[in-house]
Amino acid sequence: MIVRMSYGYIGSMKTRDGHREEVVDILTSGADGLRAAGCVVYAVGVAQDDDVTIWVSEVWESREKHHASLTLPETRAAIARAMPLLTGEFTSQELTIRGGLGV
Amino acid sequence: MIVRMSYGYIGSMKTRDGHREEVVDILTSGADGLRAAGCVVYAVGVAQDDDVTIWVSEVWESREKHHASLTLPETRAAIARAMPLLTGEFTSQELTIRGGLGV
Repeated sequence: MIVRMSYGYIGSMKTRDGHREEVVDILTSGADGLRAAGCVVYAVGVAQDDDVTIWVSEVWESREKHHASLTLPETRAAIARAMPLLTGEFTSQELTIRGGLGV
Repeated sequence: MIVRMSYGYIGSMKTRDGHREEVVDILTSGADGLRAAGCVVYAVGVAQDDDVTIWVSEVWESREKHHASLTLPETRAAIARAMPLLTGEFTSQELTIRGGLGV
C-alpha cells in the first residue's frame, strides 16, 4: 500500500443573498491553472440545503504549494472579486490526505 | 463552460482513542472498487489538529450512484468493521459539484 501524505483543505463560505452563482463562477473560472501549481483536486460545490453556502474541497501535492498558490496574482485577483460578495462566515479544516481514489 | 452537476459529499467522523489509523486503513483499502461504482474522487484525510478526526470528501457521477454504493457487500462490510471504532460523532454535507479540477 502506498501511503499518501498530500495536503487537504476543506473550507466553506457563505455568500450574500443572490450572489452564490457569481462566486461559483469566480472560483471555478481559474481552475485550469491550478494543476501547474501542484493542485490535484479542486472541487467547488454548493450546499443542497440552502442558497448561500459554498464548499471547496482541495487536495494539493503539499501544504507549501497550497500556500504558495494563494500569493499568485490570479488567485489574489479572484479573492478580491469574491470577497465583497461574501458574508465573512467561513469554516476551514486542514488535512493530511491518506489515500482514496483520484488523490 | 461546462456546467458540472455531479454529486459531492463531505463527512467527518471521530474515532475512539488510538484507533484512527485502523479506520483510515479500512476506509482506503476498498478505494479501488469505487471507480466502477461511479465515484470520481474519494479523499480520506486526517485532521492535523487532533488525533481522532477523519474527513472524507467524495465526488460521484450522481447522488443515486453514491447511495447505491452504500448497499454493496464490500461497503457494508467496511462499515461494519469501522463502526465499533467510532464514537458516533458525525457531520455530513451533501453538495452539488459545480466545477473545479479533477472533478
